[in-house]
Amino acid sequence: MTTSREIHLKSRPAGTPTQAHFELATVELPAPSAGEVLVKNLYMSVDPYMRGRMYDRPSYVPPFQVGEVLQGGAVGEVVSSNDPGFKPGDLVNSMFGWREAYVAPGSALQKLPAIEGVPVQAFLGILGMPGLTAWSGLTQIGEPKDGDTVFVSGGAGAVGSAVAQIAKIKGCTVVATAGTDEKVAWLRSAGIDHAINYKSAPSLLGAVRDAVPKGIDVYFDNVGGEHLEVALELARPFARLVECGMIANYNATEPVEGPRNIMYIVGKSLKMQGFIVTQFAGLQTQFQAEMGGWIQQGKIRWEETIFDGIAKAPDAFIGLFSGSNTGKMLVKLA
Amino acid sequence: MTTSREIHLKSRPAGTPTQAHFELATVELPAPSAGEVLVKNLYMSVDPYMRGRMYDRPSYVPPFQVGEVLQGGAVGEVVSSNDPGFKPGDLVNSMFGWREAYVAPGSALQKLPAIEGVPVQAFLGILGMPGLTAWSGLTQIGEPKDGDTVFVSGGAGAVGSAVAQIAKIKGCTVVATAGTDEKVAWLRSAGIDHAINYKSAPSLLGAVRDAVPKGIDVYFDNVGGEHLEVALELARPFARLVECGMIANYNATEPVEGPRNIMYIVGKSLKMQGFIVTQFAGLQTQFQAEMGGWIQQGKIRWEETIFDGIAKAPDAFIGLFSGSNTGKMLVKLA
Repeated sequence: MTTSREIHLKSRPAGTPTQAHFELATVELPAPSAGEVLVKNLYMSVDPYMRGRMYDRPSYVPPFQVGEVLQGGAVGEVVSSNDPGFKPGDLVNSMFGWREAYVAPGSALQKLPAIEGVPVQAFLGILGMPGLTAWSGLTQIGEPKDGDTVFVSGGAGAVGSAVAQIAKIKGCTVVATAGTDEKVAWLRSAGIDHAINYKSAPSLLGAVRDAVPKGIDVYFDNVGGEHLEVALELARPFARLVECGMIANYNATEPVEGPRNIMYIVGKSLKMQGFIVTQFAGLQTQFQAEMGGWIQQGKIRWEETIFDGIAKAPDAFIGLFSGSNTGKMLVKLA
Repeated sequence: MTTSREIHLKSRPAGTPTQAHFELATVELPAPSAGEVLVKNLYMSVDPYMRGRMYDRPSYVPPFQVGEVLQGGAVGEVVSSNDPGFKPGDLVNSMFGWREAYVAPGSALQKLPAIEGVPVQAFLGILGMPGLTAWSGLTQIGEPKDGDTVFVSGGAGAVGSAVAQIAKIKGCTVVATAGTDEKVAWLRSAGIDHAINYKSAPSLLGAVRDAVPKGIDVYFDNVGGEHLEVALELARPFARLVECGMIANYNATEPVEGPRNIMYIVGKSLKMQGFIVTQFAGLQTQFQAEMGGWIQQGKIRWEETIFDGIAKAPDAFIGLFSGSNTGKMLVKLA
């Protein structure tokens, strides 16, 4: 019998989550039955969208249940297998995160492709869901053209840092925001044209306008709130606003003020389109080939912020909302 | 020498325009020079977008100038011509509205096609700019499919009444709002499934939700404000929000509150896209053929609200903002 520690949702947060909303539990795992596999997780992912699943309301993914283990992306290694498709040592991607180990049907797991020089946890970041989110949202909705100006909020996060670099590869001028001078320095070192610390800038609108006085053609929104207003203000006619996330609003306990300049959407013929990465799942192979190629050519860099051990998973998650990560936020489990 | 009366912009309104912002002037017209034509206007159009041209700010059309004649769509009859392309009696469409007569180069005029059973002023409404706005916005951005539910605000106006009927032709269930019981009755008589008086409904959200409990696939927005919030609330995944106008905001003197539920755009993967009808000018011929066919088959009805005489043009325009029109608002000039 193997034991695993896992994180349960203890109660539903109102506002920003705290330690009190999570509980560490130890469970015993049976041996895998026919068609099942025992997996030891190596890394688990925490992502802003998970906050939405802590509300009890209908959404594109079902809500987490109080008293039950949380779910999320994880990469792990097969320990023992009763599924002929898997053998010990295989690396797999799953949605069985927030635990150290688990038993699951092999059909619920995705075997990871081997890409030279890419560590396994990259399949939770640049080559995984956040990378696909960046690549598909930017190319399928933002439609950047050579010479366009692209504005990215949350530019040093897992999604934003990929968006900013892909836009550079596509021949765009890129302006990105982040919340610390270190993140701004990282963006500059990655070749981003204009990086702005939105917390220290006297005026976000002024700082972005100074950087790109002719306005923006594409806005990739991870943040919402004031950033979205700035994007609407500086949008050029026919600009595309890719609505990927609005982390500024996720912990709001009252209705949030909407953008006061939404009317520009008519006068400037703007397109504002939201998406959930699962709608682009069919592009996964194309994405991994293209992104894998860029990584091997040294055209894409990424950062990771790693918390150690399952007990730190709630801290890692809570840290997303104060911007304590540069790049992908991960929890190392083994 | 011919004289013409015309309307000048006397001063720029802040808030809702009043009589005091307009001035009636009489001018003398020269005989047409080579390439020019003398036209007597029969009908002129007043449209909500003209309010935007009364602000002194950059936009997709240049602002009106104080002390100068206002411009706008008009249909007229050629009186005398020095352009071989035109002869007396020809009917023409132009942007030389807000005056009884004018001299202009023939190249600035568009000769009207004759469509059996269609009066000349229809080229300012159902077969003109408002009709093209409705048809192109709905088909090119809204992309309604058979069985979809379409929500239209300003449903009894020139654009909205065309949208609602085209959506019915496309096989959709249609819910439309208007501001008087008479307009609601007209919408019902035109075969619209659900017509709601948004001024007397205790709750706009409740009324629309009761009418279409499964939610909406397309929203055609002429109004903005609360209607847009309701549309975001009731939108189904992948719904399209066609942003044609936001008349609720046009006379605002302070920044308007934005939709507080804009975050749905991410979670429901919504597309919200604004447009100006000129971008679809290339579809004019296709539009007139299709719409002309529907009119002749009796599938499309329209209403006109007609003010008499150039001196009444400001009243007609001001009336747009209190909803004093059913269907196309026109001024009869001759």
